[in-house]
Amino acid sequence: MKTGLSHLYIPGPTNLPEDVRRALAVPMQDHRAPEFAALVTPLLQDLKPVFGTTEGTILLYPGSGTGAWEAAIANTLNPGDKVLMARHGMFSTLWAEMATRLGLQVELVDVPWGAPCPVETFARILADDSEHSIRAVFVTQNETATGVASDVEAVRAEMDACGHDALLFVDGVSSVASVPFEMDAWRVDLAIAGSQKGLMCPAGLGVLALSPRALALAETNTMPRAYFHLGDMANAHAAGSFPYTPPAPILHGLRAALDRLNAEGLDNVYARHVRLARGVRAAVEAWGLRCVAESPACASNTVTAIYTPDGVDAREVIAIARDQFNCYFGAGLGPLAGRAFRIGHLGDLNEGMCLSALSIAEMALNAAGARIPYGSGVAAAQQVYAPAPGQSARPAIAAE
Amino acid sequence: MKTGLSHLYIPGPTNLPEDVRRALAVPMQDHRAPEFAALVTPLLQDLKPVFGTTEGTILLYPGSGTGAWEAAIANTLNPGDKVLMARHGMFSTLWAEMATRLGLQVELVDVPWGAPCPVETFARILADDSEHSIRAVFVTQNETATGVASDVEAVRAEMDACGHDALLFVDGVSSVASVPFEMDAWRVDLAIAGSQKGLMCPAGLGVLALSPRALALAETNTMPRAYFHLGDMANAHAAGSFPYTPPAPILHGLRAALDRLNAEGLDNVYARHVRLARGVRAAVEAWGLRCVAESPACASNTVTAIYTPDGVDAREVIAIARDQFNCYFGAGLGPLAGRAFRIGHLGDLNEGMCLSALSIAEMALNAAGARIPYGSGVAAAQQVYAPAPGQSARPAIAAE
Amino acid sequence: MKTGLSHLYIPGPTNLPEDVRRALAVPMQDHRAPEFAALVTPLLQDLKPVFGTTEGTILLYPGSGTGAWEAAIANTLNPGDKVLMARHGMFSTLWAEMATRLGLQVELVDVPWGAPCPVETFARILADDSEHSIRAVFVTQNETATGVASDVEAVRAEMDACGHDALLFVDGVSSVASVPFEMDAWRVDLAIAGSQKGLMCPAGLGVLALSPRALALAETNTMPRAYFHLGDMANAHAAGSFPYTPPAPILHGLRAALDRLNAEGLDNVYARHVRLARGVRAAVEAWGLRCVAESPACASNTVTAIYTPDGVDAREVIAIARDQFNCYFGAGLGPLAGRAFRIGHLGDLNEGMCLSALSIAEMALNAAGARIPYGSGVAAAQQVYAPAPGQSARPAIAAE
Amino acid sequence: MKTGLSHLYIPGPTNLPEDVRRALAVPMQDHRAPEFAALVTPLLQDLKPVFGTTEGTILLYPGSGTGAWEAAIANTLNPGDKVLMARHGMFSTLWAEMATRLGLQVELVDVPWGAPCPVETFARILADDSEHSIRAVFVTQNETATGVASDVEAVRAEMDACGHDALLFVDGVSSVASVPFEMDAWRVDLAIAGSQKGLMCPAGLGVLALSPRALALAETNTMPRAYFHLGDMANAHAAGSFPYTPPAPILHGLRAALDRLNAEGLDNVYARHVRLARGVRAAVEAWGLRCVAESPACASNTVTAIYTPDGVDAREVIAIARDQFNCYFGAGLGPLAGRAFRIGHLGDLNEGMCLSALSIAEMALNAAGARIPYGSGVAAAQQVYAPAPGQSARPAIAAE
Repeated sequence: MKTGLSHLYIPGPTNLPEDVRRALAVPMQDHRAPEFAALVTPLLQDLKPVFGTTEGTILLYPGSGTGAWEAAIANTLNPGDKVLMARHGMFSTLWAEMATRLGLQVELVDVPWGAPCPVETFARILADDSEHSIRAVFVTQNETATGVASDVEAVRAEMDACGHDALLFVDGVSSVASVPFEMDAWRVDLAIAGSQKGLMCPAGLGVLALSPRALALAETNTMPRAYFHLGDMANAHAAGSFPYTPPAPILHGLRAALDRLNAEGLDNVYARHVRLARGVRAAVEAWGLRCVAESPACASNTVTAIYTPDGVDAREVIAIARDQFNCYFGAGLGPLAGRAFRIGHLGDLNEGMCLSALSIAEMALNAAGARIPYGSGVAAAQQVYAPAPGQSARPAIAAE
Repeated sequence: MKTGLSHLYIPGPTNLPEDVRRALAVPMQDHRAPEFAALVTPLLQDLKPVFGTTEGTILLYPGSGTGAWEAAIANTLNPGDKVLMARHGMFSTLWAEMATRLGLQVELVDVPWGAPCPVETFARILADDSEHSIRAVFVTQNETATGVASDVEAVRAEMDACGHDALLFVDGVSSVASVPFEMDAWRVDLAIAGSQKGLMCPAGLGVLALSPRALALAETNTMPRAYFHLGDMANAHAAGSFPYTPPAPILHGLRAALDRLNAEGLDNVYARHVRLARGVRAAVEAWGLRCVAESPACASNTVTAIYTPDGVDAREVIAIARDQFNCYFGAGLGPLAGRAFRIGHLGDLNEGMCLSALSIAEMALNAAGARIPYGSGVAAAQQVYAPAPGQSARPAIAAE
Repeated sequence: MKTGLSHLYIPGPTNLPEDVRRALAVPMQDHRAPEFAALVTPLLQDLKPVFGTTEGTILLYPGSGTGAWEAAIANTLNPGDKVLMARHGMFSTLWAEMATRLGLQVELVDVPWGAPCPVETFARILADDSEHSIRAVFVTQNETATGVASDVEAVRAEMDACGHDALLFVDGVSSVASVPFEMDAWRVDLAIAGSQKGLMCPAGLGVLALSPRALALAETNTMPRAYFHLGDMANAHAAGSFPYTPPAPILHGLRAALDRLNAEGLDNVYARHVRLARGVRAAVEAWGLRCVAESPACASNTVTAIYTPDGVDAREVIAIARDQFNCYFGAGLGPLAGRAFRIGHLGDLNEGMCLSALSIAEMALNAAGARIPYGSGVAAAQQVYAPAPGQSARPAIAAE
Repeated sequence: MKTGLSHLYIPGPTNLPEDVRRALAVPMQDHRAPEFAALVTPLLQDLKPVFGTTEGTILLYPGSGTGAWEAAIANTLNPGDKVLMARHGMFSTLWAEMATRLGLQVELVDVPWGAPCPVETFARILADDSEHSIRAVFVTQNETATGVASDVEAVRAEMDACGHDALLFVDGVSSVASVPFEMDAWRVDLAIAGSQKGLMCPAGLGVLALSPRALALAETNTMPRAYFHLGDMANAHAAGSFPYTPPAPILHGLRAALDRLNAEGLDNVYARHVRLARGVRAAVEAWGLRCVAESPACASNTVTAIYTPDGVDAREVIAIARDQFNCYFGAGLGPLAGRAFRIGHLGDLNEGMCLSALSIAEMALNAAGARIPYGSGVAAAQQVYAPAPGQSARPAIAAE
């Protein structure tokens, strides 16, 4: 029987803060009553800073982040529309598949898994598209499968450089609320998040943020759509409501989560994610292992995918951690299956949690056949996390 | 400030049983781990008896019941397909609108709000459709807006009588798990439920049950679909998984809810709903008011819509109950706005709860201008609910 | 199997407000850390207005109200000390037994169960005690067993009238936080409450409030005591701590409960208890039954004990309510066993809850052999609870 | 603001298992109803194996373990009775103080903090007490303040060797349910536990186990007592009840905790505590630090008290862990204040949790001025915890 804390280090769902968790066990209520609107309306407002937008509109779709993807596409693009996408991990792959399913014409740039969005290639393609046949450019800000961050701002800069007026779509599912997202500054048109990552809630809500331009397009778009119809949702949201019954526990959880993000301060949240991620990467280096991210420059601050040594099956590492240590790591997906495992380090996390993840990883790797000195990665991370000797009087966490 | 229990008598979300509620505050877990599959697989199995099927397939879509509607249509019908629907309440109306949006050609039979599905008209239309151009017949088993039950079995009988091979779709959102549903016996092809009604969970899961025929159709259907793609879901479900991250708290709640339904016994659940509904209707009669349901024969056992007396605004009744008595009734929808209010009496309910609903309704009706003797409806319901004098030794609730 | 809400109308533990309940499921924490002191210290402060004191000291004993009784006695009285007590219900009887067990010499005034504290008899005894051999006068503000309120202020007035300097002890277990308690104004020396009544928490904390005089006495008292030693507790409390590990969930619950009391406003809380109790008593009268309280003047606003008609066993009423309707009433205790049942109407309660209690009582009474018109008591209570017709615009609950 | 998991490594309250925690948020219920007895009676039964007794009687006192101490003494000993106790830590010291307060004549053997109960000295004193003037021998099985285990069985053996018939009292507050306790085999007369340690619940219940001999003594004992009166409690317990209102959430939590202990199996629970403790002690050794326990033979398997290096203030270590890393260690108590900190490793714990405790301790120690190689203690513990390379197929936790 498993005992003790279940150590959860997948890249989502993430660990629930206590107050989020308690908020879930809410009695049901009338979702058409004024009290419910008084819950919903501020959520829509308070999500804006998380997306870095004041002009944008937030919609909450009951469902998963995948649903928000579909809502984004179905409300602003039409079958036959040409879109530019890169494929460099499982989630960008799935996104492209969805676009194809929905009838879009996908111009797909394949780059190695481990590489970020190929900004220069995109730049060239966009510059070549003098007729602006490309209706939208898709960027995965954080490839959850590879632990690779892409530079949304750079893509915007290239679009501007060649004067391309395509819509800019960003998948921020595993980045929003954990790393900076500047929707207004980067002029992102459609951005997507899920409740179960940086927003520290269970899955159940797909979050869609739209620029005024995207919102306007939705009014006249012709792709058939019903559940994800933006007009229905926007109209209902305007009254603090939903066109169908929403998952109330997740909404209450989101309230608690936003309160926490605000109490910590978004900048502190981002800084914490940087610090914790640095520790994890220091451990990987100390182990002599290699991140899937092709370079530190594109290493994600929310999830690290790690190649196991030759001959060591990553699935076994994961199974040992799970079965022997009640610890959950992310699997290598697609071509990475068996070759890599992932440590999620986003959401409501702290140093001690990362260190337990690393210490368990060391035991599981060795048990699976790797030769990694015990404590080596932990020590490297501790170097990152520890206050310097004699600096115990530095501002405590409370004041960070 | 509102104090005490919030009396919730809307037709969903319904009151959560204690163990469902506690199950919601579950820590997050790896939705790709074997433990999670060990949660999901039995859910899919245990939902079958609730739908009265052994042959059918159950799919759980993260989203609402509306999402399950879309999943049903998008996976088995195609733009231009002709379907037969009745419009006799808000939800049948919305269902028809969705069908239209998704490109179906809807043959719409309008009957008064308060009437059930017009079986005879359907029979005639189907008999006339010698070329079987109608691809599907839609029946709303329980019109939540009017409190009207329709006879699914009778529709099937008429289809059989004229040898029509259309698919039979049933909206069971506010009926499944509260009143008998016999998918196999009635040869229903697609049936839909939501987690937040008879299943006594928060909203967040749309439940779709498919016959083998419907399942087979889904494989070759050509309507563009992504989020609701049945193949993805069915494949994932076969491994106890989901194609995207599901709302774990609702799944755990569903486990607890199914355990309760099984502990009570589905037949006892159905009998309880009949008994509680009879008490509510007895009260309406004692008040001298009229149900929206045009006859007792079609009165729903899960929700009762009640016309207020002339000159009494149902919205005011609802507002008084809400603001003065912390009690929530369902509003009259569409043309019934202001003319009717609804008492939901489904899910985890008992006699005392119905009596508090009725006693509050009496106060709110009077305060809104009606002239209803206090206690009159309560007394009528008590007659239904009370054990006969001297029969205190009748089997207790525990043994029913 | 029991379904639906469990209707709890015993005089404690009372129904938990939602936020109290959620506060219980708190993770454990270090009870010696500053964060814990930051929880405890404000509790001690915020309980003072509930007792009507600014000068007094509050102590929280892990245990029940009975423990607080012992703490009160053991820290301020010594074996052989003479105390004046009345016996007019089960709890005053138990209190006198405890006093005897702890070696006090109890001057016991027996009055009928149903009568309040016999102020005039007390006055005579105190006046006759010219040597002030009586060290303490005990008053049960609310006899939970009989539903009888006693007049603490009148006892104080009589003590003053004859210049008696005895300590004044008050058992406020089922009254504090539900009805006015004016410790300073009435110069009460030791007052006792439990967490599970008006404080709307689970049992687990005995609350003791002491006047400065009582506190001073405790320093030199010689009765052997350890667990309930006031010095240990007072010293620890001064640092926001406890001399032994306290039940953290109840403390967190108490925080939430005090926040609710303050949000509603104590005066509104008291007014609500008056209103709800009046409705219950109106029902009893309408039923033609008799309260145990000998007159309306001494009828408790937190609990009503009701004699069943001749030949109707109150235990059967209770059993029917419990087994058939999932509803819990208080039993008749001691000589009232079988002759009376009790409806608790204190804590987090509203009109609809009282009406469900009354409507279930009507069914259970009849099933046990009484002949009470259905709805009769409910109607009488509705008259008390209902806004007048046309007065729907009166201030809503929120503004009361 | 503190983020992430609060790492709790004090020796109680311990980390709550998930199902215990959810069980706390239970609605209130009638503590005199049959359902409540159906909760209580099995608890009393199921605690017996935890104490290693079939003959004994279990009592649950609302309060803390300290209350159970008092109940043990007050019901079986009388003022003036002579008892033999050792003082070798804060809790044995407090126990002796309580005995003195309650009027016992305490023969006190002082041994260094860090030493166990001095069995040989006890043997000599008992042998010299030819008149059997010593009525009871007290043993602290686990001194929580020093992390020292004492040998109860050896004390019993010495009592037998000299034919001494004193009662044998054992404080098992921080040992019961974590390490073997054999009440019947060791012929312990009174044993005490608290709900908040190995029983993995919040504080709120003091558990007292009595031998038939102790139970018989209680019937005639004359020490004044009320709240802790054994007769009241035993009579009430016989009917699954309490003489006053018990803390229902803790009782429900205890049900969940006992279910977990039984699911894991007590022998596996004990083995787990040994394994986890060995890892912690290996870390202390690797750090070059010294345990307060004077030898490995008496080192506790539930808590380790660790001397900080000269010049390193243990209070600072604790404060850094708390303020910078959201981690709670136990303080050095009494003469150990500032010189030692304690790591609690009992209850619902696993390897990853211990490793996070150790990794945080390394950072805190260094920040407070120690010179300890990062990862050194972690590595030593990993050696203890890790499956051997290639042995990944060893039975998983589930099968242990």
